[in-house]
Amino acid sequence: MSSIGNQLKITIFGESHGPAIGVTMDGLPGGQPLDFDAVLVQMARRAPGDGRYGTYRKEADYPEIISGVKDGVTTGFPLCAMIQNTNAHSNDYKNLRRVPRPSHADYTAFVKYHGAADMAGGGHFSGRLTAPLVFAGAVCRQMLERQGIIIGAHVRSLYNIEDDPFDPVQPDTTLLNTLNKQPFAVCNDTAKQNMYDLIATCRKELDSVGGIVELAAVGLPAGLGGPLFAGLEGKLSQYLFGIPAVRGVSFGTGFAATRMHGSEHNDSFTVQDGRVVTVTNHCGGIQGGITNGMPLILQVAFKPTSSISREQQSVNLDTMQPETLVIKGRHDPCIVPRAVVCVESAVAVCLTDLLLQNGLIQ
Amino acid sequence: MSSIGNQLKITIFGESHGPAIGVTMDGLPGGQPLDFDAVLVQMARRAPGDGRYGTYRKEADYPEIISGVKDGVTTGFPLCAMIQNTNAHSNDYKNLRRVPRPSHADYTAFVKYHGAADMAGGGHFSGRLTAPLVFAGAVCRQMLERQGIIIGAHVRSLYNIEDDPFDPVQPDTTLLNTLNKQPFAVCNDTAKQNMYDLIATCRKELDSVGGIVELAAVGLPAGLGGPLFAGLEGKLSQYLFGIPAVRGVSFGTGFAATRMHGSEHNDSFTVQDGRVVTVTNHCGGIQGGITNGMPLILQVAFKPTSSISREQQSVNLDTMQPETLVIKGRHDPCIVPRAVVCVESAVAVCLTDLLLQNGLIQ
Amino acid sequence: MSSIGNQLKITIFGESHGPAIGVTMDGLPGGQPLDFDAVLVQMARRAPGDGRYGTYRKEADYPEIISGVKDGVTTGFPLCAMIQNTNAHSNDYKNLRRVPRPSHADYTAFVKYHGAADMAGGGHFSGRLTAPLVFAGAVCRQMLERQGIIIGAHVRSLYNIEDDPFDPVQPDTTLLNTLNKQPFAVCNDTAKQNMYDLIATCRKELDSVGGIVELAAVGLPAGLGGPLFAGLEGKLSQYLFGIPAVRGVSFGTGFAATRMHGSEHNDSFTVQDGRVVTVTNHCGGIQGGITNGMPLILQVAFKPTSSISREQQSVNLDTMQPETLVIKGRHDPCIVPRAVVCVESAVAVCLTDLLLQNGLIQ
Amino acid sequence: MSSIGNQLKITIFGESHGPAIGVTMDGLPGGQPLDFDAVLVQMARRAPGDGRYGTYRKEADYPEIISGVKDGVTTGFPLCAMIQNTNAHSNDYKNLRRVPRPSHADYTAFVKYHGAADMAGGGHFSGRLTAPLVFAGAVCRQMLERQGIIIGAHVRSLYNIEDDPFDPVQPDTTLLNTLNKQPFAVCNDTAKQNMYDLIATCRKELDSVGGIVELAAVGLPAGLGGPLFAGLEGKLSQYLFGIPAVRGVSFGTGFAATRMHGSEHNDSFTVQDGRVVTVTNHCGGIQGGITNGMPLILQVAFKPTSSISREQQSVNLDTMQPETLVIKGRHDPCIVPRAVVCVESAVAVCLTDLLLQNGLIQ
Repeated sequence: MSSIGNQLKITIFGESHGPAIGVTMDGLPGGQPLDFDAVLVQMARRAPGDGRYGTYRKEADYPEIISGVKDGVTTGFPLCAMIQNTNAHSNDYKNLRRVPRPSHADYTAFVKYHGAADMAGGGHFSGRLTAPLVFAGAVCRQMLERQGIIIGAHVRSLYNIEDDPFDPVQPDTTLLNTLNKQPFAVCNDTAKQNMYDLIATCRKELDSVGGIVELAAVGLPAGLGGPLFAGLEGKLSQYLFGIPAVRGVSFGTGFAATRMHGSEHNDSFTVQDGRVVTVTNHCGGIQGGITNGMPLILQVAFKPTSSISREQQSVNLDTMQPETLVIKGRHDPCIVPRAVVCVESAVAVCLTDLLLQNGLIQ
Repeated sequence: MSSIGNQLKITIFGESHGPAIGVTMDGLPGGQPLDFDAVLVQMARRAPGDGRYGTYRKEADYPEIISGVKDGVTTGFPLCAMIQNTNAHSNDYKNLRRVPRPSHADYTAFVKYHGAADMAGGGHFSGRLTAPLVFAGAVCRQMLERQGIIIGAHVRSLYNIEDDPFDPVQPDTTLLNTLNKQPFAVCNDTAKQNMYDLIATCRKELDSVGGIVELAAVGLPAGLGGPLFAGLEGKLSQYLFGIPAVRGVSFGTGFAATRMHGSEHNDSFTVQDGRVVTVTNHCGGIQGGITNGMPLILQVAFKPTSSISREQQSVNLDTMQPETLVIKGRHDPCIVPRAVVCVESAVAVCLTDLLLQNGLIQ
Repeated sequence: MSSIGNQLKITIFGESHGPAIGVTMDGLPGGQPLDFDAVLVQMARRAPGDGRYGTYRKEADYPEIISGVKDGVTTGFPLCAMIQNTNAHSNDYKNLRRVPRPSHADYTAFVKYHGAADMAGGGHFSGRLTAPLVFAGAVCRQMLERQGIIIGAHVRSLYNIEDDPFDPVQPDTTLLNTLNKQPFAVCNDTAKQNMYDLIATCRKELDSVGGIVELAAVGLPAGLGGPLFAGLEGKLSQYLFGIPAVRGVSFGTGFAATRMHGSEHNDSFTVQDGRVVTVTNHCGGIQGGITNGMPLILQVAFKPTSSISREQQSVNLDTMQPETLVIKGRHDPCIVPRAVVCVESAVAVCLTDLLLQNGLIQ
Repeated sequence: MSSIGNQLKITIFGESHGPAIGVTMDGLPGGQPLDFDAVLVQMARRAPGDGRYGTYRKEADYPEIISGVKDGVTTGFPLCAMIQNTNAHSNDYKNLRRVPRPSHADYTAFVKYHGAADMAGGGHFSGRLTAPLVFAGAVCRQMLERQGIIIGAHVRSLYNIEDDPFDPVQPDTTLLNTLNKQPFAVCNDTAKQNMYDLIATCRKELDSVGGIVELAAVGLPAGLGGPLFAGLEGKLSQYLFGIPAVRGVSFGTGFAATRMHGSEHNDSFTVQDGRVVTVTNHCGGIQGGITNGMPLILQVAFKPTSSISREQQSVNLDTMQPETLVIKGRHDPCIVPRAVVCVESAVAVCLTDLLLQNGLIQ
């Protein structure tokens, strides 16, 4: 299913090389103002950029709102937005149909859809389908911001290059608000330059790299989520793993917590400005599956881009014979910078659903 | 919500110190034989053991089946199973009510339930609530095994002690079938002894440690899952994060994939015995959110046990003053060994739901 | 599935002749006081009575609360309640296994569950399974009453005997509050006596009759429900058709509206005490799927009881030969009086889910 | 929510006077051929016709497929279809904004959406939103027909004019296949002419009438549905009440069953061509919530059209003063003939979801 949500149900539709892609958002409350320019800022962050770190294809990515908004305000009816596909080169992908690209969805889609799936350009599995997600996130983000909730993320690491981590106890909201408008969100300028250089090298070497996105959300009320399968971690993960190329999701100190003692990892409570807070924030703002009012901190692992221009080994599904494959076209050697806004968007949509469930947005 | 599932809906109920805990399983097909002894083997793996690595409380954990099974065969009606609580010492926890234990759910539950939640012994957040999950997993596992699907897991690492990893391309099914009946599932005997020793040390030092559980499932058909939010990773995560103390979930090569190049990480296709397979299995058996027929490989990060006997800093929620806290009672310095069966169970329940959705179990 | 609900998920489990039946309620808010005696009053209304209109079996129907309530207050954790089965005579039903009773679920259950369903006494399809529904309704009703919402129903008709209908514009709340505690809720005493007599006649003639239950709910806020598939009518129907023997559900003027002109059926608006109200209430309090603040009015059609003691024609599923069947045991010649509380309960659970979704109960 | 479904999730979007309306269908299997002309036949049945029984507005109602279909075959990805709004006269409705039309959703939408809903032409509540439902039904119907399932319906009654009922035991499939392509589906020609005349009279008198639609579906396998809340009646109702103006839904003999004895209503079993069948079909093909292989028979009650051109009493929501209202524009004095295809469509989408859940379409 390309649908998710309880009180805010979204369905993402479209194929990479079809006429358009888009999203329906069912459950938005009425009367919410929508700043369309702010939406476009987010769309631009995901779109491939100046060639320094992204692909060279120009995608307009202009969302046309079909329903659910009137005079710049949500009506309460389902919002449908569409993005025309204007610049697809289906020839580049044609020979791949029966020779699945390694680590893409070509083979599994072939099995699942009995060969009927339109996999040109990756079809419905294409990274391009994150554009409607970013649109939905941009809409939700505005509602969250009116609740005092700020979401920001950055490239925490690219291959072995590390950016400065967020302060988990008190992330700098000015920094978050700067990062969450940038196309290449990195805190440390040197790290950023090194990442640029690494990506450039990868492009030359017809290779790709992965990385980690770290996100912080501040301003969340305590009490969101619940025990067992209602835990916020599980709910967020279902949205985050909806982004292609995600291989892992962790919260707070994440996998590093497995190499800590309880005496070190436990977050002591104290009182600050009349409010219960924790001294450290190893839990990343979630205890027992429920927000504790501290910043939400999470990490998302992205594998290296599967599309590389080197020769690879595959199988021809018609002849069942091994076949050497070279993927033509221009490929993004590292999607992590563009994935930052996708991670923010997935989290924004998830949190909006949760706030609606809790009657906190009406 | 303590409920999850689409075609197989499970609801876990009960509190740590109430009369009983249990689970309802709605959607099981009729006519499935149930080996009750095999269920008990799984229940025993979760129960605290000989004091070497678990707590000392003796929990009978004997599941009584109230409905849904007749003459050892599922009827197709909802299965309800209950486990009596026989050995709870609520005094041990009484003083904790208004002084939340660090990194437990005490504080967040207090906020969410307006102070009404019965948090004695951790209430519904207690690790004891994994017993009904293990029961449900044991039921599902038997159905999966009849489909040729074998699930096994082990303590991949405990603090800094590492076990031998599974072979991701061809995990040893004999090994999996041995591990998935053991209370302390570790492949390498030396590593196992070192883990025992570390836990003993932690107990002496009134501290705790975390670790990583790695799981392999073999025999899954290709084609399970789907694009975007239907991805198997997101669905599994929602089940896995339902286990208390989980801080991260990753698939295949996991977070290590972020430090790889595409040329290294991509899984080439080849043909083996007339079947399309991958030469490596960095993707952990999932491509584009869909199983590719290779072994499912995943990792689950557990934080160190929050209950430690050392003095800790907290806040009295009545007076809003800082208060020093010592948690009495006996605590499990490392829940990772007992968590192995929980991870297997969560995966078994999730995969059963998915097979039912796909009409593969009827 | 025997599960339903969004923010309040209930699962009903158990078989007629198994050890116990029960219900889990997941999503109840914490801190809600529960008057257990008031619950028992509702349970008694459903239980077979003095032999004048019900069966002769004595069913204790005492609900034991396993979890979710502490010191008479909900904890916010899943509530599980069980009712022991104490007085089942499985012999009475034994010969029916392979000779399905006409208009029962015996045949369809045989097909669906591959013959594995435990259909003794009707199994999970038995009318007895409405006992957990009435329990759940009794819990919900108390929360609704604290919101000023009163639900009452009566036997609107039994065969051709009609009770006085409710005033749809202003139902008498004193009457509703009297009816909703009675085992045989009828407004008009003469009609009630005639119904008693008709049931007595049916019993003598080894036959059965059906009837219509009419329900009114006052105090609902305007604005609950939504367009299309979010309409309150569809949501209520899913709960109401969960009661065995229901053949139709209608709202307001119901099927009679099909023989009216718009000029007669349309409900004009006016202002009363500063509030918008309708002059008539043909719509039964729902316009465009959304409550308008007027009383909710609905009707539920019950077929005549399928269990009759006369000789009937069926088929032996083993031999596939026609076979004459006589259903032994004592049967309720008319379940409509006992169904009144079931209808009220289904509506109470549904409305509670809706209020929780709208953040109106927290 | 304007979304429904489990394995086939549909979301209907758009407003009556917005740029377009449409539907997303998520969960369609891949590889299903789609006859677009057959879809247009169904769309035409819903569209207002020659003025004899419908409104005079010409609505093109041409569905444009955005995604999910390639070369006339479903891909397995979400199908999105849009219908442009070409002929709306928003002036006709402008003065209604603050003076709600009686028995429309104007008032309840005003309350629910805080006045933000775009209610021009009825907004998202407009009967026009059934066009995407009919599209979805037309797609599903083709899949069902390939499974041997035929759905047909007719105007069972219009005000007090009755058509010949379907034979519940053996509906004429030739008749069903004729009716399910007609814009005004009535079996008896005299009844049809009388209905035409009645509608013409209503138009002259600026009034409207309601009626009942009866549906039959043949070819359904036995075993679909389940006990309690999984019952087919409840599931179908949720789809059927999604159609505007529906006031009641009943199955088999429906409300008339309440005036029958069990000895008359019970459907005896017999064997025919080696198959278990019932001699009568009062249950309408559903026993215990599960199909028994006999024809599915159901009735849907439609109230008289709320839009009438007579002067009506309402309230100005700004001034809270009574106000007389005349609804301008041309109105359909009877939507029942056009509702026939909507009922068929709702049932087709519901049954497809159910067959997908049961693995019967893959």
